Amino acid sequence: MTTEPVMSRDAVAAYLDEVFPQIHHGGPGPVVAAVGPMSAVLRLPYHDRHVRPGGTLSGPAMMMLADVAFYVALLVQLGPVPLAVTTSLSFNFLRKPARRDLLGEARIMKLGRRLAVGEVLIRSDGSDDLVCHATGTYAIPAPEKNAVS
Amino acid sequence: MTTEPVMSRDAVAAYLDEVFPQIHHGGPGPVVAAVGPMSAVLRLPYHDRHVRPGGTLSGPAMMMLADVAFYVALLVQLGPVPLAVTTSLSFNFLRKPARRDLLGEARIMKLGRRLAVGEVLIRSDGSDDLVCHATGTYAIPAPEKNAVS
Amino acid sequence: MTTEPVMSRDAVAAYLDEVFPQIHHGGPGPVVAAVGPMSAVLRLPYHDRHVRPGGTLSGPAMMMLADVAFYVALLVQLGPVPLAVTTSLSFNFLRKPARRDLLGEARIMKLGRRLAVGEVLIRSDGSDDLVCHATGTYAIPAPEKNAVS
Amino acid sequence: MTTEPVMSRDAVAAYLDEVFPQIHHGGPGPVVAAVGPMSAVLRLPYHDRHVRPGGTLSGPAMMMLADVAFYVALLVQLGPVPLAVTTSLSFNFLRKPARRDLLGEARIMKLGRRLAVGEVLIRSDGSDDLVCHATGTYAIPAPEKNAVS
Repeated sequence: MTTEPVMSRDAVAAYLDEVFPQIHHGGPGPVVAAVGPMSAVLRLPYHDRHVRPGGTLSGPAMMMLADVAFYVALLVQLGPVPLAVTTSLSFNFLRKPARRDLLGEARIMKLGRRLAVGEVLIRSDGSDDLVCHATGTYAIPAPEKNAVS
Repeated sequence: MTTEPVMSRDAVAAYLDEVFPQIHHGGPGPVVAAVGPMSAVLRLPYHDRHVRPGGTLSGPAMMMLADVAFYVALLVQLGPVPLAVTTSLSFNFLRKPARRDLLGEARIMKLGRRLAVGEVLIRSDGSDDLVCHATGTYAIPAPEKNAVS
Repeated sequence: MTTEPVMSRDAVAAYLDEVFPQIHHGGPGPVVAAVGPMSAVLRLPYHDRHVRPGGTLSGPAMMMLADVAFYVALLVQLGPVPLAVTTSLSFNFLRKPARRDLLGEARIMKLGRRLAVGEVLIRSDGSDDLVCHATGTYAIPAPEKNAVS
Repeated sequence: MTTEPVMSRDAVAAYLDEVFPQIHHGGPGPVVAAVGPMSAVLRLPYHDRHVRPGGTLSGPAMMMLADVAFYVALLVQLGPVPLAVTTSLSFNFLRKPARRDLLGEARIMKLGRRLAVGEVLIRSDGSDDLVCHATGTYAIPAPEKNAVS
């Protein structure tokens, strides 16, 4: 298993906008802030549609950010794999996020032939405290036939 | 612990629209289809913003549906508890959902004084197969001071 | 995908004792109580080694029961698959179990070519209340080469 | 929230052996290797009872190690809290562990008044690769009445 990235930040950002234009529906969606070996950082710009009572941001906004961040970390490592499939995601919500941008840092913990496992750490912009911790698994399509499950 | 519901379908639907108008941002959000003891069924109308490559629906759409369904099941049982907080959510994605409405059925497995645990079963409208299974935990505010964590 | 079981209770019990003699180390381990389509029920006999302060049973005893119950449900469906690998397990602990036998009921929610997903419901013998709810995923070896991940 | 530890390695090791003598039933159980602010490292000595077909170690052995490691990290931070209760544990099994000691490193990600959330990283002794990643939540008894949920 090589851990050398195969897509740059710009390449993966362009690919993401091409295949997932819907993530920007209704307001700005997550943008690729940085990529590295087995990792990616995405920023979700603050937007009113994510606000919940009490002035915090919604759980689904954090979950969407985690899902996209993990996917981008895989793209960076594997190149465009449009059929990779999220098989599980688990979230612990630790603190109420402030009304600011969210940053999601995805790290791949294992990149196997068929299965990838990673975590995503979500923080409010400007703070070191975690607001959410996620772990997830992805099924990687078999090269020969792209059949999953 | 009583398991008698305290809010009707209409009452909980009205409350949800009042406190979470954002769930309909950008297109129709989940609507309360039915409620029962320790349970609720929500319908997420099909909408283009949820579509992903391959003609399936997005993981975040299912996660948002599960989060809201679980919250509604708690409202039904506890009455309006605006400060109840999701502390964890875990998802297994089982099959790719078709391009139709999604139905999320939340069931509370334990309703303690401080913690509620439940599951949400998500299916495509018209099918018995699960597309997603979720489990979640909620912190219930202490009555005397509403302080959580 | 057929859902017809391929191993009987007696056959799977004999196989389990043959390949996993260690589950009875230090005291009686889980025994197969019943099997059905996509399901299995295992009983963990009460034993002092599982007791924890306060007179309850240990979390690891429940986790071991869930792991074995899920594996048996797969054996029942797939036949002997010695290399099937647990890829994830998630537990919510709902109530303190009494000092009695535990019953773990595993249900397969999805049986794909490469991945199985299921849940396990754990109760104290003689009670309907769940003491623990588990979900898990298993990687199923590819028939041609038995290589996982 | 202070992050200053209140129990030393020796103190927490002695307490653990006093309240959980059962963890050494049938062979050596986990021992406290090191403690630090919001963290603890436990070692599970290699023993035949943990071996599984293929020469690897059992999932339940890793799950027990994670459960104890997380509990020790809380003891270190909170002092003896015999009634703290594990409310959830989630595991991703990443690689097959070798036939050696396992090391479990627990880190508390959030220590609230009522709920603690942490992760445990499990490795084979002598290797940097993770064999298992766990996240967990603990309910912390209310000081005034020690009643949980």
